[in-house]
Amino acid sequence: MKNTTKATLYGRREFLASVTGLAGISMATTLPTIALAENLLQTFTVKRVIELILQEVPNAPFPTTVDQLRSGTMDQEVTGIVTTMFPTIEVIERTAKAGANFIIAHETPFYNNQDETDWLQEDDAYRYKIELLNKHRIAIWRFHDYWHAHKPDGIIMGNLLKLGWEKYYDANSPRLLTLPEPTSLKSIVSRTKERLGIPNVRVVGNLDQPCRTIYLAFGYMDSRRQIAAIQQFKPDLILSGETREWETVERVRDGQQIGQKTSLLVLSHSVSEEAGMEYAAKWLQPKVPGIRITHIASANPFTFL
Amino acid sequence: MKNTTKATLYGRREFLASVTGLAGISMATTLPTIALAENLLQTFTVKRVIELILQEVPNAPFPTTVDQLRSGTMDQEVTGIVTTMFPTIEVIERTAKAGANFIIAHETPFYNNQDETDWLQEDDAYRYKIELLNKHRIAIWRFHDYWHAHKPDGIIMGNLLKLGWEKYYDANSPRLLTLPEPTSLKSIVSRTKERLGIPNVRVVGNLDQPCRTIYLAFGYMDSRRQIAAIQQFKPDLILSGETREWETVERVRDGQQIGQKTSLLVLSHSVSEEAGMEYAAKWLQPKVPGIRITHIASANPFTFL
Repeated sequence: MKNTTKATLYGRREFLASVTGLAGISMATTLPTIALAENLLQTFTVKRVIELILQEVPNAPFPTTVDQLRSGTMDQEVTGIVTTMFPTIEVIERTAKAGANFIIAHETPFYNNQDETDWLQEDDAYRYKIELLNKHRIAIWRFHDYWHAHKPDGIIMGNLLKLGWEKYYDANSPRLLTLPEPTSLKSIVSRTKERLGIPNVRVVGNLDQPCRTIYLAFGYMDSRRQIAAIQQFKPDLILSGETREWETVERVRDGQQIGQKTSLLVLSHSVSEEAGMEYAAKWLQPKVPGIRITHIASANPFTFL
Repeated sequence: MKNTTKATLYGRREFLASVTGLAGISMATTLPTIALAENLLQTFTVKRVIELILQEVPNAPFPTTVDQLRSGTMDQEVTGIVTTMFPTIEVIERTAKAGANFIIAHETPFYNNQDETDWLQEDDAYRYKIELLNKHRIAIWRFHDYWHAHKPDGIIMGNLLKLGWEKYYDANSPRLLTLPEPTSLKSIVSRTKERLGIPNVRVVGNLDQPCRTIYLAFGYMDSRRQIAAIQQFKPDLILSGETREWETVERVRDGQQIGQKTSLLVLSHSVSEEAGMEYAAKWLQPKVPGIRITHIASANPFTFL
């Protein structure tokens, strides 16, 4: 793969030189033309794209992280990038159809956060997925820990931008959002459904409750941290992606029984971070000129009945 | 506590002797009367009730189990028993009101499966709960691992009885139910909602899909086991309580994309095992004559919107 990539790159530069040579223009004008054309024809390996991303993340690279290459090779030349939440089989098929070969995914392709695959060797969906990735030579890199570690957290900021709440973001307390005035839980439910494109949500709490402070827990977040946050911040609302029912949900319910005001809005995991991966596409685009970046939403798997 | 309990017991027997003595009937008739009356007046400590339960569980007691006494004392005399899924503050208040002092709960009172409390010492809901339990001298014992280890699994059987599916239970493959004929997923959704009293559920799959084999995963179940079951049994449906979205949900979704038929019906944790704890009350009642056992449903905490 490495040799092919280099050969392609070299071939393009040779072609460029021969075209400018044939035009018969002076070096003075040729030089900037070459610079511009080279920029447009610039190629990126998977490794280079990852390096460009890590440059923006404090303390990167991390010694331990799930953000690893899960398929493809570091030195393959990128034909196009897709960002998504879950690299589902459908997302991979649509990536191939779009002519892209690099998926930057927030979540696991292999149904476990550590992306372990030994237990899946006989699993039909896993095998189909691996064959599909190999057939189309598609690289998947997890962009989970680094995107959360970016300042601001890319998932939070992607959501806030869509919700029109980015101006209330507080870098000193990034998970606690304070709205300028209290808004009913009902109205927050409508806003998240409408702006994040979520058909259904689940709530633990009173829909008429006024909410001003919102603890942001998009995706999945450790329950002990959320329960500690209830005690520390006494937020009006926890805005969650996915949470364990025997942990945070029951703590919120008990709190309400003794008069605490903290409610819980559960969006579902995939849709609660999708805006963050859509934002990742926009954020990354200027760093890789000439490479087309598309966001493909893995969307909500659930039907609510 | 131990001395009080013994004193109460002794007092009752003295009273019984004096009543039968006053009646002035012969020993021949008095003896069976005493036996009957003693049975009715029989007292049980928490410890005795637990012993009676463990007698019915293969290989009990287990060296490691979450089924421990979480409040109260082993030797307190039981005034009444409540079975429930989650011993919420509301359930504890209703228990006290009913004059009962022993809650047999399937799930954690302390928002974590191991019932650890060190991290909760400053938590307002935890402190309120502990004070409430102490004030009313209410014992809580987890009946989780032992109830699942009972033959048949008490949670599964409680659900099957309510669903009218108990005759399809197969002791050789207790998690795989085979209906006599295919039923649409839509119709199974209606049946579970109606018979288990669940207002809303979530589905991953096609509502018109015919289902005959159902993999039973009430409550929360390890995703790797569920994913292995998809491969092993190729069930038409997984009937789940709570499951991780990045694990089972995404595996089911990928499977459907490649034409696999396994759908997923998620009931929510509390309501998916409530029938099992209602069944526990009926199952336990004959073992503790004279003790009133009530099932208090902790019910579904969610509003679906």
